[in-house]
Amino acid sequence: MTSSFLVVGSVALDTIETRAGKQDEILGGSATYVSLAARHFCPVNIVAVVGDDFPEAHVDLFASRGVDVTGLKRAQGRTFRWSGVYAEDFSTRQTLSTELGVFETFDPEIPQAYRSSPIVLLGNIHPSLQLNVLDALAPGAFVAADTMNLWIDTTLDALTAVIARIHLLLINDEESFLLTGERQIAKAADALLEKGLEAVIIKRGEHGAYLFAKSRPFFAPAMPLPTVIDPTGAGDTFAGGLMGYLAHQGDTSPGAIKKGMVYGAAFASATVEGFGTRTLEGLDMKELEARYARLKDLVSVD
Amino acid sequence: MTSSFLVVGSVALDTIETRAGKQDEILGGSATYVSLAARHFCPVNIVAVVGDDFPEAHVDLFASRGVDVTGLKRAQGRTFRWSGVYAEDFSTRQTLSTELGVFETFDPEIPQAYRSSPIVLLGNIHPSLQLNVLDALAPGAFVAADTMNLWIDTTLDALTAVIARIHLLLINDEESFLLTGERQIAKAADALLEKGLEAVIIKRGEHGAYLFAKSRPFFAPAMPLPTVIDPTGAGDTFAGGLMGYLAHQGDTSPGAIKKGMVYGAAFASATVEGFGTRTLEGLDMKELEARYARLKDLVSVD
Repeated sequence: MTSSFLVVGSVALDTIETRAGKQDEILGGSATYVSLAARHFCPVNIVAVVGDDFPEAHVDLFASRGVDVTGLKRAQGRTFRWSGVYAEDFSTRQTLSTELGVFETFDPEIPQAYRSSPIVLLGNIHPSLQLNVLDALAPGAFVAADTMNLWIDTTLDALTAVIARIHLLLINDEESFLLTGERQIAKAADALLEKGLEAVIIKRGEHGAYLFAKSRPFFAPAMPLPTVIDPTGAGDTFAGGLMGYLAHQGDTSPGAIKKGMVYGAAFASATVEGFGTRTLEGLDMKELEARYARLKDLVSVD
Repeated sequence: MTSSFLVVGSVALDTIETRAGKQDEILGGSATYVSLAARHFCPVNIVAVVGDDFPEAHVDLFASRGVDVTGLKRAQGRTFRWSGVYAEDFSTRQTLSTELGVFETFDPEIPQAYRSSPIVLLGNIHPSLQLNVLDALAPGAFVAADTMNLWIDTTLDALTAVIARIHLLLINDEESFLLTGERQIAKAADALLEKGLEAVIIKRGEHGAYLFAKSRPFFAPAMPLPTVIDPTGAGDTFAGGLMGYLAHQGDTSPGAIKKGMVYGAAFASATVEGFGTRTLEGLDMKELEARYARLKDLVSVD
């Protein structure tokens, strides 16, 4: 009953510095992390754009991990590049440079074969592009979207239109406050559910993530890890693990979302233990199930 | 098999301002919150000092709630007063004034009848006073202690001596980093366990609390609440609920501590819904058990 999963987002080259070291122009981007997590559960279709400088080895990596790259467009120009440095305690990060390159004019084209994907994640791209993707999808898909404070500040109308058409919103706590004017996550969630969403997941980084739906709230903790190397992509692998699990189960009920969030947290815990996609590339289901079991154990009183 | 529980700490008069309003000189102090939570589970003995201006009605409140006030000393002078204002989002608070009064020369005298209490919490007082209390206790007590950054900065030797003699340390995340030089809670916890503790609880405020012991880590989430009125005392009622539960069970194993932490989180969730001790005073076990069930449900995927 496994369905395919479609993610639309960014593929990038990241230069990352943490107290553990520095890595130059490694594979990054939201759609990268999402798809490299989700592929453990289901066939993944990726729609993104890269420049003519994008290493073919990265394309091969996707293909070798079961990610369909038909929708990974190569455009003339440079690949999206991001460079940043994390604080010693990883609580904040500073962007050193952003070079949008071909991502600046990205207008996602959804290949015909992808349009009937029953599970879709609209990555953190301009809300008007998210609307274009929604227009291209066959009816009946379960659609989740990620967003960020930039869109809340600059294109609120388009973002509101997106929210009215999707089923699940992924948002961090500060963004949920910005979007609703509330200061408590329970109230922010209520305000978002009133916009017609089936469910909202409020992410709190290393503190875990909350699910609010028609049912009672649910909380998926993050794993307390002795060693963090690079937090980049943790939120995206959380989303990828979650969405991949929903596709695998063919179930988008709150019950499935809860389990998917714990798998997502398991992926995130592995992601931060290495630079970029390194641990994610080598992860197997046995290791993932062990992390899932540890996360369940972490909150079990019995 | 319920045992009695001894808490040594502060009783104060607090002036608190939050976005919900302002309250002048209401009953506060760590030992107050601890005992008003713990009394739901077991007989509570309180050792603290108040001034000759302390309202008799507050003493009556303790007595009417089953808190033994033999050890609540009245000294000549003014009661400890604290005044503070919380940020709009409750993430920080600013102390406006601290008047130690009789608390400045507090030297806890432990009544003979209290010395055999099998469950003891050394509230956040000077570590040298915590050592005096340890000297007065009969052997065999399970002793927990709370501390703060002030003692880490100013009297580290005495604090280290306390840690070497107690079983359970309660500490918040920033303090655990300050005390150990680590930046990840799992590593900070390991460093603290190496000092001979049986267990360490690292508190993260509204993000919940972790238990680290010889067993696998445990996490007790905090309840996402739509309405927060006053966070004062949340950490102390968490500790009081936990310690009271251990006394009630006559069990200080990690398994009992886990359940006690969830009860503690249940008390904390009620405490913040009113100013000062207001909701705590009126709380009954039925309401508490309902909150305990909601907290278990919050992290249940099945």
